[in-house]
Amino acid sequence: MKGILCQLTDTQLIDVTHGFPRQNVRASAFWLREVIPHFPPAVHLAVVDPGVGTGRKAIVVRAGGHALVGPDNGLLIPPARALTEGSIEVFRVAVSGDGSGDPATTWPPDPASSTFHGRDVFAPTAGRVHEAGVDSLDTLAGIEHTDSYERVRFPVCQHRDGGLVGEVLAVDGFGNVITNVPGTEIRAHVGGQIEVSGDSVPVRRTYAGVDPNESLVTIGSHGNVELAVNQGRGDDAFGVAVGDSVHLR
Amino acid sequence: MKGILCQLTDTQLIDVTHGFPRQNVRASAFWLREVIPHFPPAVHLAVVDPGVGTGRKAIVVRAGGHALVGPDNGLLIPPARALTEGSIEVFRVAVSGDGSGDPATTWPPDPASSTFHGRDVFAPTAGRVHEAGVDSLDTLAGIEHTDSYERVRFPVCQHRDGGLVGEVLAVDGFGNVITNVPGTEIRAHVGGQIEVSGDSVPVRRTYAGVDPNESLVTIGSHGNVELAVNQGRGDDAFGVAVGDSVHLR
Amino acid sequence: MKGILCQLTDTQLIDVTHGFPRQNVRASAFWLREVIPHFPPAVHLAVVDPGVGTGRKAIVVRAGGHALVGPDNGLLIPPARALTEGSIEVFRVAVSGDGSGDPATTWPPDPASSTFHGRDVFAPTAGRVHEAGVDSLDTLAGIEHTDSYERVRFPVCQHRDGGLVGEVLAVDGFGNVITNVPGTEIRAHVGGQIEVSGDSVPVRRTYAGVDPNESLVTIGSHGNVELAVNQGRGDDAFGVAVGDSVHLR
Repeated sequence: MKGILCQLTDTQLIDVTHGFPRQNVRASAFWLREVIPHFPPAVHLAVVDPGVGTGRKAIVVRAGGHALVGPDNGLLIPPARALTEGSIEVFRVAVSGDGSGDPATTWPPDPASSTFHGRDVFAPTAGRVHEAGVDSLDTLAGIEHTDSYERVRFPVCQHRDGGLVGEVLAVDGFGNVITNVPGTEIRAHVGGQIEVSGDSVPVRRTYAGVDPNESLVTIGSHGNVELAVNQGRGDDAFGVAVGDSVHLR
Repeated sequence: MKGILCQLTDTQLIDVTHGFPRQNVRASAFWLREVIPHFPPAVHLAVVDPGVGTGRKAIVVRAGGHALVGPDNGLLIPPARALTEGSIEVFRVAVSGDGSGDPATTWPPDPASSTFHGRDVFAPTAGRVHEAGVDSLDTLAGIEHTDSYERVRFPVCQHRDGGLVGEVLAVDGFGNVITNVPGTEIRAHVGGQIEVSGDSVPVRRTYAGVDPNESLVTIGSHGNVELAVNQGRGDDAFGVAVGDSVHLR
Repeated sequence: MKGILCQLTDTQLIDVTHGFPRQNVRASAFWLREVIPHFPPAVHLAVVDPGVGTGRKAIVVRAGGHALVGPDNGLLIPPARALTEGSIEVFRVAVSGDGSGDPATTWPPDPASSTFHGRDVFAPTAGRVHEAGVDSLDTLAGIEHTDSYERVRFPVCQHRDGGLVGEVLAVDGFGNVITNVPGTEIRAHVGGQIEVSGDSVPVRRTYAGVDPNESLVTIGSHGNVELAVNQGRGDDAFGVAVGDSVHLR
């Protein structure tokens, strides 16, 4: 993918991460939504594509002066929405041909492979969008506006039996467990305790609010409730993984 | 290594991968052969060097306007051959001195260490080749043409007993098992089934041609037969690792 | 963090590593001391910060034309000392406000989070120091010289009972075990044998001085005694991890 990009543009390539949870569109969309708004306007290429080769088209999403390029599986929509208070624009990229094209020189994309659209479709699109300019991306052949695209939804936490039922959205590299529960729900308890799936756990402003290797609940940099261990792994201590339920009371 | 490069050149550094299988020259040569031809002409630095410190010299391989810098253990030859339909040129880099030289300022390389030639020999060579220019690399002191260099050979799959005996060349980060069997051998069976080491497995154009968590055989983006699981790990499902035999019928 | 940096500067970002041992300040300081002096003068941003959110301030260390930015927990001091034969200068970065500031536009830093000072404090500082210039970093508002800062000490190996008692400082990605014992202590034994925690092990100039999968002792590129296995993992073979004692005789 970087080779194709280098053939199409001289701009600096920035590796944001190679560590998204494999094949997990929703958790990756969550991370992108946290990360992309901190960048200045740019072309962002993101590929988490368990459905590669199913005929699903590539999309480009324009929002707030940025362009996001990737698969039409919902991945790009939450970060695009976080880039603007206005509306987002979605464009579909035509893919056609007999697969004989060189990805760096053929346009619209004519994927040589059925399993590596990152190289054959998404990187060529990102390079060309960058060179055309985000404002002019719709002047590229084969790119056209669409209102029909996939969404990904983050689950909303539920109030039930005087408590909250949330879900684990993501686990970061340190093992911190990021839930879908808004931090505002526990803000009043900072300094006190709450019950997490039956166990009483201190609520602290920061990891260091408890001793090393002690569990805590905190509000992460993303604004959501996080289950953590000071200098340890929250996922191990709380025994949860992405998609699991978490009961707070 | 990047520090030395930054001392010698202002050009953009692109991280291609830090994920090659450690110490495995052949699998790394396979990956380089797949990746490097997608780049525009550049200086490529690659170090997979289980024999570091044995006195083996560094080489520079020139092919198709690119230069590849690394150890003389065969690693660079398959990607170099993939860069040109003509011939490749191999140059040997003299290494000498008492080890007191600073790698950024001493030339030819005078390695301070016996165990980190990436820093002391290969990075200084790559930086200087870049600054001299690929066309002029043989004007650098201590670099001379050679016809004596190591090759690495990829095993060829064998027709035997009405079937094919192949070998696992590499496993990618998703667990897809890449064999040495050319995709042309199974192209006629796409949509049908073949036997893999005794089990009947569907042959599909793409991972999504079977249900999630189902095994399949496909032709990868590299053109070789791949053993995979849709949204899962083929290496686990087929129970194979790099170097293992695979029987197709 | 990269997003914030890209908002503040157009300079090339170089990823040195994302592989430091998590939360281990001392081992990370060791690696930084090995790596940073190979770079030309630059702004280096390093975050290993088990105490994030405890109120500890950010520091900038100026040494040899470089600036190092990170937490005041000792991490930056060994690499800074390795950059100059003169003295180092340490500056404290004021952090204040109500947490409502955008990290790219607010200065001095006003962290929006208690758990991600990399994004909210260190990256904004590194970007601004780069743009101000290392020589002028003290002209930035909120940055002031200090002589009160944390140190990290590497343990010194001990001569005891006719042998040496050292400690494992770090284990590299190949499994090579890096001790605090200076290579000079074993230089006379290269080509012979020494006892490591009771077992006789060959001392060799390079990994390839023994057969593949055989253990050896060598002097690493950092100048310290290393316990290794040719083409294998020394940490497994010697059964040691960071912080463990090693007895040499």
